[in-house]
Amino acid sequence: MINEVFRRIEALQDWTLNLLKKLIRLPSVSAEGKGIKETAEFIEQTLTEIGLTTKAFQTQGNPVIFAEYETDPDLPTLLIYNHYDVQPPDPLDEWNSPPFDPQIRGGKLFGRGASDNKGNIAARVCALKAMLDVTGSLPVNLKYLIEGEEEIGSPNLPEFVKNNERMLKADVCFWESGSRNEGGQQQIILGNKGIVCVDLICEGANRDLHSSRGIMVKNPAWRLVWALTSIKDADEKIKIKGFYDDVIEPSPTELENLKKIPTFENETLKQLGLKSFIKGLSGIDLLKRVFYEPGCNINGLTCGYQGKGSKTVLPKRASAKIDFRLVPNQKPADIIAKLHNHLCDNGFDDIMIEAEHGYPAARTRIDSPYVKLLAETGKEIYGHELVIVPISPASSPVYLFADKIPCLSFGVGHSDSRAHAPNESIYVNDLFLHAKHMILFMSRLKDC
Amino acid sequence: MINEVFRRIEALQDWTLNLLKKLIRLPSVSAEGKGIKETAEFIEQTLTEIGLTTKAFQTQGNPVIFAEYETDPDLPTLLIYNHYDVQPPDPLDEWNSPPFDPQIRGGKLFGRGASDNKGNIAARVCALKAMLDVTGSLPVNLKYLIEGEEEIGSPNLPEFVKNNERMLKADVCFWESGSRNEGGQQQIILGNKGIVCVDLICEGANRDLHSSRGIMVKNPAWRLVWALTSIKDADEKIKIKGFYDDVIEPSPTELENLKKIPTFENETLKQLGLKSFIKGLSGIDLLKRVFYEPGCNINGLTCGYQGKGSKTVLPKRASAKIDFRLVPNQKPADIIAKLHNHLCDNGFDDIMIEAEHGYPAARTRIDSPYVKLLAETGKEIYGHELVIVPISPASSPVYLFADKIPCLSFGVGHSDSRAHAPNESIYVNDLFLHAKHMILFMSRLKDC
Repeated sequence: MINEVFRRIEALQDWTLNLLKKLIRLPSVSAEGKGIKETAEFIEQTLTEIGLTTKAFQTQGNPVIFAEYETDPDLPTLLIYNHYDVQPPDPLDEWNSPPFDPQIRGGKLFGRGASDNKGNIAARVCALKAMLDVTGSLPVNLKYLIEGEEEIGSPNLPEFVKNNERMLKADVCFWESGSRNEGGQQQIILGNKGIVCVDLICEGANRDLHSSRGIMVKNPAWRLVWALTSIKDADEKIKIKGFYDDVIEPSPTELENLKKIPTFENETLKQLGLKSFIKGLSGIDLLKRVFYEPGCNINGLTCGYQGKGSKTVLPKRASAKIDFRLVPNQKPADIIAKLHNHLCDNGFDDIMIEAEHGYPAARTRIDSPYVKLLAETGKEIYGHELVIVPISPASSPVYLFADKIPCLSFGVGHSDSRAHAPNESIYVNDLFLHAKHMILFMSRLKDC
Repeated sequence: MINEVFRRIEALQDWTLNLLKKLIRLPSVSAEGKGIKETAEFIEQTLTEIGLTTKAFQTQGNPVIFAEYETDPDLPTLLIYNHYDVQPPDPLDEWNSPPFDPQIRGGKLFGRGASDNKGNIAARVCALKAMLDVTGSLPVNLKYLIEGEEEIGSPNLPEFVKNNERMLKADVCFWESGSRNEGGQQQIILGNKGIVCVDLICEGANRDLHSSRGIMVKNPAWRLVWALTSIKDADEKIKIKGFYDDVIEPSPTELENLKKIPTFENETLKQLGLKSFIKGLSGIDLLKRVFYEPGCNINGLTCGYQGKGSKTVLPKRASAKIDFRLVPNQKPADIIAKLHNHLCDNGFDDIMIEAEHGYPAARTRIDSPYVKLLAETGKEIYGHELVIVPISPASSPVYLFADKIPCLSFGVGHSDSRAHAPNESIYVNDLFLHAKHMILFMSRLKDC
């Protein structure tokens, strides 16, 4: 039976690629409010067409699509989470082909969302369709949730999950996405860091002034630069009082697992054109920082004259977009409160905090039987041991489910997939390996 | 005779306003290389038409227009310096009328360059034309230099001055521009601060990355922010080693003059929407900082995602445009060298310095007889004591001449002229007061 489903997956290759291309052509950039309605409608239609019972839920923001297939109340229930929104495509001039015009070159499919995470949607829909086409049913009860605001911090998902607790009840969850590592080994990721995003804004005089007046009039750019330095300085430590209070050190089992994770440091450095990692870290120290430490990143700076040549101006406004990546046990509201206090306590009460949003980190226990099953089935499909990654340094609202059920991330990305950057891509073949992996896991889930 | 010339100035009001409007309509933005040729040609044509012998000099950059009128070798020679280029007009959406479409509202003429410094060109051309129309001659030998690169740091003027030393020889110089203070008192400015402009640029990975990688990969925005903080921190002192070495303290005579300069602090603060000046300074302390201390200003910051909403990206590049305003005796090349050393010594060898240019400060002695003559004639025209400002905190290449002859700045601006900013303006009537002031000074110059 499994082999027949696998053959069906192979027969569905063109169908799946077409589905993914259609998804990428829909420019569903949630940060810019583009293409959302069309994408949500297309997802709803697709899930209905393969045989799921599908419903679009309106929220305060973008629609949530929910689909299900009830096989037998005695079978375990698998929940799948994905998102249909993508990151903005800029800088546009660095794409070798347009971000919303998917193209296949050298076995890779390029386009915004190919890896994060429309490719995963296409592969999972392919798996479900293949199983339904061949067997007329699924070996599990299935629930499929696809939201449209992940890339802007999922502001409406918590309320949706709270209001639909019963509908979303499940035993285990396939989470969003995943990738191969730099050595081509498929990975299982046990959770995600949390995130807090804020805009820091400083205003000076009520107008731009001749820059010579900077000798007497406050410059908001300087104020912002000093405030940022007060938050994190050149030793890469975050200086906000109490910021690290809730951070948990890795357990001995977790430290043991770290030793099994290859780091590919030289390859990564070469690929990115870098000489070293932050603070010159490597090996276990680097992995500990990546998986067990929170961080703070500047996403953007905006102030004054940015054109060609020089314009000697004292700008009236300066702003920074920053994010904090949180580890399990840190609480977003607490981090924002501590940031507020930090700015006040350090004389930066002229720095405004705006556009704040975020969610906590969460992760599945490394000794969960579902982790074991996914690793075993993965080994059969990919032909090698899978790497268990304790947490993704990236964020997604996995905490909404992982606090209740095990959530496992695995997917169609590769180590150079360039999520959030120009020339995002996946290997086409990984779509079908992922679909087969899913089929094998689902078919053995009842014995887990 | 003077009265007849004054009446001629009044008769030339429409002619002068038309001249100024034509100048403003020519968008001569040197930073963007726009409208330069047309403006230079128009200036050359205008100076020829009023009766001067005019010549356009090609340089490596924008043309220099030079005009002269030789009356009598035994008479003193007056040199006038102006520039026909202007600052970029952005932010465009903050102009109440388009920057290059001059409009008169409430006795003020609005447009880019109205105050800095096309209004001064129009007033001075009006004075020269009136005198020539009425007397058929001038009471001095006149030399008029109008360059087109002041707003980008006059990169080609030093060579031009060096190559044309004999042609530019004079006894006294009217420099560029000037303005009334906040109390409406006309000012004479004795010099200008110098300037050094640089772009600071930091590069990280060879591409934008997902911001979660900020935990391990250098963020050029953080590096830039830390480098900037190392240059000047929240106490507003510049931390570059030796930066203040060549700064000269004000003499007792200069300190005495400071006491005569009204500060209009409350009015300025209200006008700019501010609560206090930098470091809470006021009175003599504020004036000392403004006139006798060098500064460092951020003109612009550019990095990463600057659009709506959030994009969690680790940017590959960050840049800042900064300027240093220098006081007499500081040397631009020395300041740039010290900045280089500072960045290296403080571990910021990944910060590149680009687009560097600048020139030193210069000022005329406060006890010069020409200062006295300009103050006396000004009092007759304006009906009040003129305020002697020891130096303009703004920069212009006055050092090229002020090292040899007294240079005096006075002009058609007012305290809210908004040079370099949206809604730049002058009071129309100040054009003709300035022309008359010039006539009176010129006619008495031979007795000075």
